[in-house]
Amino acid sequence: MTTSSTAGETPRRRVGRPIKAVLTHESIVKAALELVSGKGYDGLTMSAMAKKLGVSPSALYNHVTNKHEVLILIEDHLAAQVDVSAFDTKPWKEAVSDWAWSYRQVFAQHTPLIPIVAVLPVTDAPRTLAMYEAVSAGFRRAGFPQERIVPAIVALESFIFGSAYDATAPADIFNTGASAPSTPNFTSAVSSFEATEGGSNPDRAFGMGLDALIGGFGVFLPLSPEAEAAAHPAR
Amino acid sequence: MTTSSTAGETPRRRVGRPIKAVLTHESIVKAALELVSGKGYDGLTMSAMAKKLGVSPSALYNHVTNKHEVLILIEDHLAAQVDVSAFDTKPWKEAVSDWAWSYRQVFAQHTPLIPIVAVLPVTDAPRTLAMYEAVSAGFRRAGFPQERIVPAIVALESFIFGSAYDATAPADIFNTGASAPSTPNFTSAVSSFEATEGGSNPDRAFGMGLDALIGGFGVFLPLSPEAEAAAHPAR
Repeated sequence: MTTSSTAGETPRRRVGRPIKAVLTHESIVKAALELVSGKGYDGLTMSAMAKKLGVSPSALYNHVTNKHEVLILIEDHLAAQVDVSAFDTKPWKEAVSDWAWSYRQVFAQHTPLIPIVAVLPVTDAPRTLAMYEAVSAGFRRAGFPQERIVPAIVALESFIFGSAYDATAPADIFNTGASAPSTPNFTSAVSSFEATEGGSNPDRAFGMGLDALIGGFGVFLPLSPEAEAAAHPAR
Repeated sequence: MTTSSTAGETPRRRVGRPIKAVLTHESIVKAALELVSGKGYDGLTMSAMAKKLGVSPSALYNHVTNKHEVLILIEDHLAAQVDVSAFDTKPWKEAVSDWAWSYRQVFAQHTPLIPIVAVLPVTDAPRTLAMYEAVSAGFRRAGFPQERIVPAIVALESFIFGSAYDATAPADIFNTGASAPSTPNFTSAVSSFEATEGGSNPDRAFGMGLDALIGGFGVFLPLSPEAEAAAHPAR
């Protein structure tokens, strides 16, 4: 389907409406993300999208059946930006770390979509499925127990989504203000944390949690021959 | 300030409006939570709250200055439901675990508020501060390094918020459907996970992640005299 004008002819712009865009999944996702950025998730309606795209609602419905389909397109668009390439090139621990940092960065830029994407079935989202397939394959190749791959990924994702919010929190979120005298332990813990150097506060909290998760999940990996030998020197 | 009628007199009910409630912080929070449950966070406006409470907007403004103040009341109301008592009675690892499970349960019932609470400064929220004080004191008593207390709490909270969403996800969220042939690793990982017994899928993912975080953070604790002796048997 095409909505373009005859080649060589300048399209006549209708008063008060943007130039009619060629409707593609990409242009629909772009319009949807702009609406969410501007007005939050509740600003995302089929009619608002049609208006933003400069098309009639019926033209939009020719491309996407309903809002759920738009959400799947958005989920896929975001998943495709998450870098899973390290699972092909690096050891498991580094690959998980690279994936998690990339995943958090993508969602820190789109926090209003977290409540949606966190509970959206992946069935019809091919690029989201491709991400999970790459990650699962990486876990499996490393020797991670089959039945623990999904809960490990879910736990990492939960941590990533929550950390994406924290990445956008105001710097003074833990300022105890006038309550400092009644919260001596927390107040001094906040001061000590803020006096430490090396990266933003959210980055340091994320790094510390990610190290713990990767280290904790690492115990499920089979030992390398070298580590095996070190653990059982008597053999 | 009181809005109650004369003692002994039955208040006359105005047509189409609920009986005028005595405005308290508790009744305001209750109305606010009901609005969010029904219509999501965007349903929470000062005028909708006044209507729900059966009072004029000006009466409501006599009790809370603005929506931000309502959000602080909500944050405090939820924080007060999180159980921190284990920090007074149990070893650090168990206390962190009890706190985290309780925290997740509270927010799994109020996921629309996560995007707000996750980035809301705690300065004017006394009960939220009391929670952080109890947790910080528990970490400190256990010997956790001062400058690592806050990032550890932030990482745990991020994991808890994300896991609260997962606790509300549909059971078929990872159904690969017609894409199963192109996602063999992920599809078999999902099957293996679902074939495992012991708790709901979200609970198992949460438990696995929480164990990893607590174990990973546990390395920052000083060794007990027994553990110290075991680690250095030559001494």
